[in-house]
Amino acid sequence: MDKNKTISGFSKLSKRKKIKWIVENFFKDPEHVMKEIISHWYKDEEKQQILDEISENTITNYSLPYGVAPNFLINGRPYALPLVTEESSVVAAASSAAKFWLDRGGFHCEVLGTTKLGHVHFFWPGTISQLQHHEEALIARLLEVTAPLCARMEKRGGGIRSVRLRDMSMEMDDYYQLFVEFETCDSMGANFINTILEAMADELKAYFADQAQLPTEQQRPDVLMSILSNHTPDCLCRATVSCPVGDLTACADVAPEIFAERFARAVRAAQVDPFRATTHNKGIFNGIDAVLVATANDFRAVEAAGHSHAARDGQYRSLSDCRIVDGQFEFWLEVPLALGTVGGLTALHPMAKRSLEMLGKPSARELMCIVAAAGLAQNFAALRSLVTTGIQQGHMKMHLGNILNAVGASSGEKDQATEHFSEHKVSYQDVKEFVETLRN
Amino acid sequence: MDKNKTISGFSKLSKRKKIKWIVENFFKDPEHVMKEIISHWYKDEEKQQILDEISENTITNYSLPYGVAPNFLINGRPYALPLVTEESSVVAAASSAAKFWLDRGGFHCEVLGTTKLGHVHFFWPGTISQLQHHEEALIARLLEVTAPLCARMEKRGGGIRSVRLRDMSMEMDDYYQLFVEFETCDSMGANFINTILEAMADELKAYFADQAQLPTEQQRPDVLMSILSNHTPDCLCRATVSCPVGDLTACADVAPEIFAERFARAVRAAQVDPFRATTHNKGIFNGIDAVLVATANDFRAVEAAGHSHAARDGQYRSLSDCRIVDGQFEFWLEVPLALGTVGGLTALHPMAKRSLEMLGKPSARELMCIVAAAGLAQNFAALRSLVTTGIQQGHMKMHLGNILNAVGASSGEKDQATEHFSEHKVSYQDVKEFVETLRN
Repeated sequence: MDKNKTISGFSKLSKRKKIKWIVENFFKDPEHVMKEIISHWYKDEEKQQILDEISENTITNYSLPYGVAPNFLINGRPYALPLVTEESSVVAAASSAAKFWLDRGGFHCEVLGTTKLGHVHFFWPGTISQLQHHEEALIARLLEVTAPLCARMEKRGGGIRSVRLRDMSMEMDDYYQLFVEFETCDSMGANFINTILEAMADELKAYFADQAQLPTEQQRPDVLMSILSNHTPDCLCRATVSCPVGDLTACADVAPEIFAERFARAVRAAQVDPFRATTHNKGIFNGIDAVLVATANDFRAVEAAGHSHAARDGQYRSLSDCRIVDGQFEFWLEVPLALGTVGGLTALHPMAKRSLEMLGKPSARELMCIVAAAGLAQNFAALRSLVTTGIQQGHMKMHLGNILNAVGASSGEKDQATEHFSEHKVSYQDVKEFVETLRN
Repeated sequence: MDKNKTISGFSKLSKRKKIKWIVENFFKDPEHVMKEIISHWYKDEEKQQILDEISENTITNYSLPYGVAPNFLINGRPYALPLVTEESSVVAAASSAAKFWLDRGGFHCEVLGTTKLGHVHFFWPGTISQLQHHEEALIARLLEVTAPLCARMEKRGGGIRSVRLRDMSMEMDDYYQLFVEFETCDSMGANFINTILEAMADELKAYFADQAQLPTEQQRPDVLMSILSNHTPDCLCRATVSCPVGDLTACADVAPEIFAERFARAVRAAQVDPFRATTHNKGIFNGIDAVLVATANDFRAVEAAGHSHAARDGQYRSLSDCRIVDGQFEFWLEVPLALGTVGGLTALHPMAKRSLEMLGKPSARELMCIVAAAGLAQNFAALRSLVTTGIQQGHMKMHLGNILNAVGASSGEKDQATEHFSEHKVSYQDVKEFVETLRN
């Protein structure tokens, strides 16, 4: 093993010294790379420091393209959505779906619940019925001891909604949980929830330590861990689009009735086939995550919640569904969304702050609606392409610019290529050969 | 509805005109916001153009902090991992787990398969046994017609691995699939796979059109869609760490045997409880996605594949597992990873290119190993905190900097706060009050 490539005390080095160690040990042209890494810094030192301190061992910034999809009509209000994604055609697809539904009533979104969850996992040597003897007294003490920690959240209308015991002893001997429901208003609430749970864990131990009448081992519950859950089936939003089947025009050369039928079958395929469901839901998250990144929300949390929700009945299925009843086409998405519009990085990241402003400084509930609409729009656009022209035609047209950049095409070459490939199939090789032919 | 907030032809506007329309209609201080949006552009126009053309309707760049976690020993080779994440403590956790395992043999990673999948979904009015009469001849023609499209991929060692019919008629009348396996070498392969599938769909129609002996309706299969699948259970990587239980030291004040036992129980909890599994896997993806973003891979695809894999047996479970056998602690992760190190944006995004260089220009298989190790490291660090000190102690210490920035603390105030909170519990309110007290 090359000992130069490991290090002690890296985190304590200055930013420049960190970069120096990295470029000298992992790059062939250290000076050049160091300059390039530094070239990505903000000129404004204060702004750069904020970025640096968001994470650890930071050496520079990673830029993602910040796009905008206008014309989203959500619950009667027009929005322009900030979308941060590295995937070509996501923003174009969102914009096109938004425009399509703008003339057909837009997106109707409803928050079905905002309950967040957390658990204290503990082991207690006794049966569930023995444990339940203590339930009422224990929970009273848990609520009492955490009351001061909840005071500010309660002023905002949130706090602890319920605490109960959950019997997990069929899975592991003596395994129980405190199952806690929270309302965290406009904050994602992770720190609030984890702080409360850790305080509850301490009090759980204190409670049983006080029960001198119990056998010694029952006076010492073994707390394994205290942590929020990202599985939040009751922090849920539904987004719906709907119109008479006859209004499903402008979908290529397909008659509205046939389009509706093909679309419904494509959704059905994603309901019954996990191979298809995974890709289908991936497309939904293309839209969702792009808004989440733009607003500094945690996309891993939302992905985990969404996909585990998709598997809730024992088979992994589509998060969206579709029906055609009495000539009316209806397409909807139900997705758990534990979001925040205050706290975290929402006010700290310079562009996240602007994204929220662009969205009219939404509450967490409003942001849930916006994000769900973005997911449904993306799903609609993807299925529309898939069941009509196929995905490649639009996608490769969008990707053409990337290929032209990758082969180093000049502006003149780009114009000629764009004209040529408006009528020919785009592939990396064909674009490369076309540009090479131009050059010879 | 405010008509000024919707627009036709937005995508055709110049970048400056796009910004102008957005700031004038969605912001209170248009001029100031316009300047700020532009301030995020690269000075280097060429670099900016590359970013702009990755996506659509782009108006600026969104910066994420680019951190580095050194000391990852993976299959005997030391790496420094580029990690792009907005979540505090992810990079610190990865670094700390990497250092811990550096002295204990590092990460052992094995690619279990690289098979990628795609499907042509079609409807054909007949039974599966009627359809199977055509299987051999049909597949021969599908392979023949797609051969030229596969030529370059085959030179690199990839191509189509198999084509078969899949009976889906129990789910919908007449529903069948062409189920196609691919090897796409170092590319993620989405465009390759979709192009092949669309060509197969055309040929499927052509094949049946030629079967004059069949009833007319059987001469016209109805192709619904042709698309890759993100559910790739055979594109799989396993990462493992292992050491004698007695070597599990440096985990707070807990004896190695007790730590190992608590750790194993925490993994078991994530195996049996979907509420815990979701959060557990979310932590794994904190590590995985940070490398994916840094290398311009598609994290939505990997998230969807991983979470649907986690639900494969009918219950959503942990992707990692743990055992203690004969005094040996073993902890491993199995996760589907369909990645690319060529094509896509890997050579186009300026920092993604550097990330791959930092990793020694890995093949896709090597990157699978690196990414799996990042996921396992993150999971190890999270569980270590959870079953010892609790998550909040480390997390809030990392988050302290963000809170100080949010309340606008000066450099002197930050020093005093950091000293104070090294011995006190961090909460937003307490930090805010501490800084206010300093000021009065």
